[in-house]
Amino acid sequence: MEAFIKEHQKKIVRELEKVDGKKFTIDSWTRPDGGGGITCVLQDGNVFEKAGVNISVVYGTLPRAAIAKMRVNHKALDPDVESLEFFASGLSMVLHPINPMAPTVHLNYRYFETANADGTSNAWWYGGGCDLTPSYLFDEDAIHFHKTIKSACDKHDKDYYPRFKKWCDEYFRNTHRGESRGVGGIFFDDLDESEKDQEQLFSFVKDCLSAFLPSYLPIINKRKDLPYTEKEKQWQQLRRGRYVEFNLLHDRGTAFGIHTPGARVESILMSLPLTARWEYMHFPEKGSREQRLVNVLQTPVEWV
Amino acid sequence: MEAFIKEHQKKIVRELEKVDGKKFTIDSWTRPDGGGGITCVLQDGNVFEKAGVNISVVYGTLPRAAIAKMRVNHKALDPDVESLEFFASGLSMVLHPINPMAPTVHLNYRYFETANADGTSNAWWYGGGCDLTPSYLFDEDAIHFHKTIKSACDKHDKDYYPRFKKWCDEYFRNTHRGESRGVGGIFFDDLDESEKDQEQLFSFVKDCLSAFLPSYLPIINKRKDLPYTEKEKQWQQLRRGRYVEFNLLHDRGTAFGIHTPGARVESILMSLPLTARWEYMHFPEKGSREQRLVNVLQTPVEWV
Repeated sequence: MEAFIKEHQKKIVRELEKVDGKKFTIDSWTRPDGGGGITCVLQDGNVFEKAGVNISVVYGTLPRAAIAKMRVNHKALDPDVESLEFFASGLSMVLHPINPMAPTVHLNYRYFETANADGTSNAWWYGGGCDLTPSYLFDEDAIHFHKTIKSACDKHDKDYYPRFKKWCDEYFRNTHRGESRGVGGIFFDDLDESEKDQEQLFSFVKDCLSAFLPSYLPIINKRKDLPYTEKEKQWQQLRRGRYVEFNLLHDRGTAFGIHTPGARVESILMSLPLTARWEYMHFPEKGSREQRLVNVLQTPVEWV
Repeated sequence: MEAFIKEHQKKIVRELEKVDGKKFTIDSWTRPDGGGGITCVLQDGNVFEKAGVNISVVYGTLPRAAIAKMRVNHKALDPDVESLEFFASGLSMVLHPINPMAPTVHLNYRYFETANADGTSNAWWYGGGCDLTPSYLFDEDAIHFHKTIKSACDKHDKDYYPRFKKWCDEYFRNTHRGESRGVGGIFFDDLDESEKDQEQLFSFVKDCLSAFLPSYLPIINKRKDLPYTEKEKQWQQLRRGRYVEFNLLHDRGTAFGIHTPGARVESILMSLPLTARWEYMHFPEKGSREQRLVNVLQTPVEWV
């Protein structure tokens, strides 16, 4: 997994630099308690307002309290131990384009493993997903994005796409607003030996990650130079506000990271947009493109 | 409490309209499950980017799960009942000025009461506070603000100001950043009969609320027309980002509100600024005014 995400980070950064014309800043960092990562960020670019591609490979000891917290979502974890050794590696990425016609995209794939103090294996699982968040909805973009991901899923299991598409719609939801963050994609967590063996799941995750560039590049290239008005830019800023709300109020990964002592906060919060806006009681006009997006976010659509 | 906060909302709105020159929009709303409120908002004003003054008087039934959650902070609540009747009233306010030299201010005072199904009283308490969040620090403003609040506290108990000032520094803290949200003020919660009798505490809360206008008006009037640069405005936007982080990641009131079915989300999130900004790895220059603010936020100061 480590070698694969490293190689893929380079490839994604290279392709995004071609799209933007500006270079990413590359920060290598080490975690005081074990491991480290590489954070690549492009800010105030020609195409991207803010783009971050981050990998981390960290390890250390999980104290009892952290194990209890993780067990809520990962039943395989042994609750009766004082501490566990853990190893976690993953790639995560958020791209916020300048043009309001071009959608934000988020991707994260991760592998987690724990071991008992005597070195014997305790539990392991894969998690992750990829989802699209437009401010202006082009149906063909949502369809292309979902189709590409579905192809990657179908190679491994015909049930994966429908299961993980649904999971994505349920997970990335601003429940307090009664709307989804975006038009979805896939999301899964806790995929372990009760699902498939480790090699099969790694191969699945590899194919998902490899599907990212073909799923997003055609969209960004088609939308990045479309004309737009000041009013449309403002709408994008309001939608960025909703993005911030999801990430800070609901996202489990952000909450887990923020409350982990010694976590690299700048890498976790790199997912936030450069700018966002909140207006009291802003509602789009009936029949407008903005209203149509909200309708779709309230009731997720089957795109393929 | 209800009559007092209604009257005070009117008074505060009237005085702030004099400062801004623009009128507040007034929304009366009813809560489907009981009670309602009045939300006054001024957006894109001459002095305030966004200002909200909200009162609510709500009542209904607290289910067992909500009681268990509240018990973490309110030990007087009986854990062994299926449900409780509750009554809550409060005034809350956040003012975000346009000028980066003028500080954001937040205030909230509330009264909470529960009753058993047979109508007998179960528990009651007061909570609240008031705190100042500058982007550029003027020591004299922080001193004036704290002095005014201290006078109100001292009339009731000489221990109140030091106790509640410390509580404020501890509560309004972006723990993940290792810094306070602002330069503090006071904060308290769960003040009940173990503290003082109901009349004495109501009188204390009344004096705190009455101290707001004299604590803030001289500051906003002194700062609202100061000259500022584009770079200073940008720093304010980054500080607004930190404000959003606190409110969405750490604030108990926001979390409680957001997860309460039927809550009026627009009134809860009225506390968010109109605009905010997040830059990856932004650090102020050594020896700059921006750095001095950060130093003070890292290690809270005794202002009086």
